[in-house]
Amino acid sequence: MSVAGLKKQFYKASQMVSEKVGGAEGTKLDEEFKDLERKVDVTNKAVIEVISKTSEYLQPNPASRAKLSMLNTMSKIRGQVKSPGYPQAEGLLGECMAKYGRELGEDTNFGGALVDVGESMKRLAEVKDSLDIDVKQNFIDPLQGLSDKDLREIQHHLKKLEGRRLDYDYKKKRQGKIPDEEVRQALEKFHESKEVAEISMYNLLETDIEQVSQLSSLVESQLQYHKQAVQILDELSDKLRDRMKEAQTRPRKEYVPKPKPVIDFGDTNEQSNGGFTPSSVPPMRNAGNALDLRPVRERHIVLCAVAARWQGVMRPPVHVLG
Amino acid sequence: MSVAGLKKQFYKASQMVSEKVGGAEGTKLDEEFKDLERKVDVTNKAVIEVISKTSEYLQPNPASRAKLSMLNTMSKIRGQVKSPGYPQAEGLLGECMAKYGRELGEDTNFGGALVDVGESMKRLAEVKDSLDIDVKQNFIDPLQGLSDKDLREIQHHLKKLEGRRLDYDYKKKRQGKIPDEEVRQALEKFHESKEVAEISMYNLLETDIEQVSQLSSLVESQLQYHKQAVQILDELSDKLRDRMKEAQTRPRKEYVPKPKPVIDFGDTNEQSNGGFTPSSVPPMRNAGNALDLRPVRERHIVLCAVAARWQGVMRPPVHVLG
Repeated sequence: MSVAGLKKQFYKASQMVSEKVGGAEGTKLDEEFKDLERKVDVTNKAVIEVISKTSEYLQPNPASRAKLSMLNTMSKIRGQVKSPGYPQAEGLLGECMAKYGRELGEDTNFGGALVDVGESMKRLAEVKDSLDIDVKQNFIDPLQGLSDKDLREIQHHLKKLEGRRLDYDYKKKRQGKIPDEEVRQALEKFHESKEVAEISMYNLLETDIEQVSQLSSLVESQLQYHKQAVQILDELSDKLRDRMKEAQTRPRKEYVPKPKPVIDFGDTNEQSNGGFTPSSVPPMRNAGNALDLRPVRERHIVLCAVAARWQGVMRPPVHVLG
Repeated sequence: MSVAGLKKQFYKASQMVSEKVGGAEGTKLDEEFKDLERKVDVTNKAVIEVISKTSEYLQPNPASRAKLSMLNTMSKIRGQVKSPGYPQAEGLLGECMAKYGRELGEDTNFGGALVDVGESMKRLAEVKDSLDIDVKQNFIDPLQGLSDKDLREIQHHLKKLEGRRLDYDYKKKRQGKIPDEEVRQALEKFHESKEVAEISMYNLLETDIEQVSQLSSLVESQLQYHKQAVQILDELSDKLRDRMKEAQTRPRKEYVPKPKPVIDFGDTNEQSNGGFTPSSVPPMRNAGNALDLRPVRERHIVLCAVAARWQGVMRPPVHVLG
């Protein structure tokens, strides 16, 4: 830093100290300027918070949002073009419904309906993805631009203005000790900075119709999303109504108890546990069950090991089996 | 446990061991029964997962969901009737918009629009609350009932059936050693249990149209929600369009730079920092700023303390001030 720069820094610091600690009052800006400043400050805060709350509205699960953001960063690093999307709750519900519906069988009422609803939920997730993309492009990105460019620029002007104000106030207090010309120059610079800051704030606030147009984009995207959802659900509702009507016209099948099997004691020599077949003709047969063909000794060893676990609770099964 | 009960437990355990370890095969149930069992199992899994995924769809933020559940439990313990609702993302966005809109002033374009959009977002949150309540009552609760009552009952029957099957298989393998009558009774009990389980499963699957009707309730609630959202957003969209039209017809106010103030050096004895007033008539006046009225000595002490911090960086301000 040059000597002049250091001197200037010292003037400003000194003035700031006498204002903050010594209670000296600095030059005040007019009410009109202060009003502009306040409105710009509110705009700034509004933009930042609206961006954050809109992201939460579009992607409400913080864990999924964080994971997605990380995956997107990784895709960018790897140079991958396609980045994963946010896992929409409708989509996850839809996947689960469609999967179980197919497992249950589309020929059943519940299975078929689950597939219908599941597929529609997946379509709902798709239109929600579109909402996400639209709102990002036409609402969040322009607001972010406003915050990163215009609002940051204004902040820069205001900071510069404050520096020049301090410099002017320091010199003004020392009128007589400091050449009049230097004080005059400081005032001029202060005024120049004030005008620049004022113009930038004025322009931002005067063109606030742009932000209204961005809000309008948000609303149009939401409107389109909800309209598409109505269309999908309207179709689905009709489908389900038809399914229910059809099911109601079908006569209900009553449970027909199967004839009880009769035991056949003629086959006791076979070591198998027997197969149980509830059809009564033939009433009972030992349907070819696999016999345990391992040598008795080997079976005995295995069962002894198992039996050890039962020790103390009941007699080990080796006494009965083996 | 009675001796008979203990004996029965032992029979079943012994049979289970010889099946699981010894590789013996137990009585097999018919394919029709197994198909019922499989379908009931899929229904059970479907119901549990659909309930969980629907809750995530309605209340997608896990942290908020957990907090709400805790608050609701606490309200119940305290006997409070009114329990808090889920913080809908639309509602939070709406609150934030309306707040900043009012701070900015409804007379400004952006401020007014923020209030409009904010209020509509809050209405969107209300219709989402209704969706939440409707789906809970007409979809989640009935499905939960199915899971807690019918499906649990079936599981109980199936467990009992498995116990009786083991008992029967154990006795059957010992035909001859165990009285025929006892084996016959075991088979009868097994068959009886099988019929009960079969009837319960058959009935559940045969009345699956009830689950279709519950799915239909879900879809109707969603449809109603999205229709209401369309209505709210349609109105809002018109409002914003009017606001933009009106703003465009208003002539744009250009920034009028204020005349630069001229410095007045006639008042150097006053210790004040002076007030800066950008209006040019009078060109400059020292607008009544508060003087630092504390004794010079006190001011000197304060500033010395502050100056100590600057020591070594630059000349302490006490040399200039005081």
